[in-house]
Amino acid sequence: MIVRDFNEIIASNPERVVSDAQWSSVRLLLADDGMGFSFHITLLEPGSEHTFEYKNHFESVYCMQGTGSITDLATGTTHAIKPGLMYALDQHDRHTLRAEEQLLMACCFNPPVTGQEVHREDGSYAVAE
Amino acid sequence: MIVRDFNEIIASNPERVVSDAQWSSVRLLLADDGMGFSFHITLLEPGSEHTFEYKNHFESVYCMQGTGSITDLATGTTHAIKPGLMYALDQHDRHTLRAEEQLLMACCFNPPVTGQEVHREDGSYAVAE
Repeated sequence: MIVRDFNEIIASNPERVVSDAQWSSVRLLLADDGMGFSFHITLLEPGSEHTFEYKNHFESVYCMQGTGSITDLATGTTHAIKPGLMYALDQHDRHTLRAEEQLLMACCFNPPVTGQEVHREDGSYAVAE
Repeated sequence: MIVRDFNEIIASNPERVVSDAQWSSVRLLLADDGMGFSFHITLLEPGSEHTFEYKNHFESVYCMQGTGSITDLATGTTHAIKPGLMYALDQHDRHTLRAEEQLLMACCFNPPVTGQEVHREDGSYAVAE
């Protein structure tokens, strides 16, 4: 059994936290945990906007706190984000995410993220070697 | 893109909610969504105790609200559960979960649950055909 605490990781395990000025992701499970998916808690700063396209991953995102929106860039459809809303990028959907209030999200990736990826200019992660 | 809302499912999609007297699970993603994992929001009633052993699945569980504990029945070790605590059953660990306050948990399963499983007497789910 693996047991990890979000607050302890924030305080003591910076190697498990990936951040930029507008975005921070705490990696509770990564590929080397052997679960077949990775699990991250992600914070998006209020007023921020992010365009991502995970060409090599499926991702689901569940909103725990905050409000914002997501736009599917293939269709132009925008969905409001609030606590209880989940979106799943089953078509590797290119999308723009906007935080009105700070968003606190629970994210699952398949295949699992290794922790070594960086967001590329096109908003994707490279697939692990 | 799949978009689903926990509160709308509770109100209008009982086929996505599996419950017994002490436990309720809202299935936001199932096997037929094609993500390679399933994602559930699970509520455990205050004072309840549950012994599970997912012999055929890996499961991760993230506590969003509430307090309780989990005991690894192989080692006897007990961990406190509170918001921010995640446990992952990477060894298909047989365990007892106790809710002191109502627990609200975000759960990922690999392989994905189909929605047709029932808890067997030994606390496991059968693997999908």
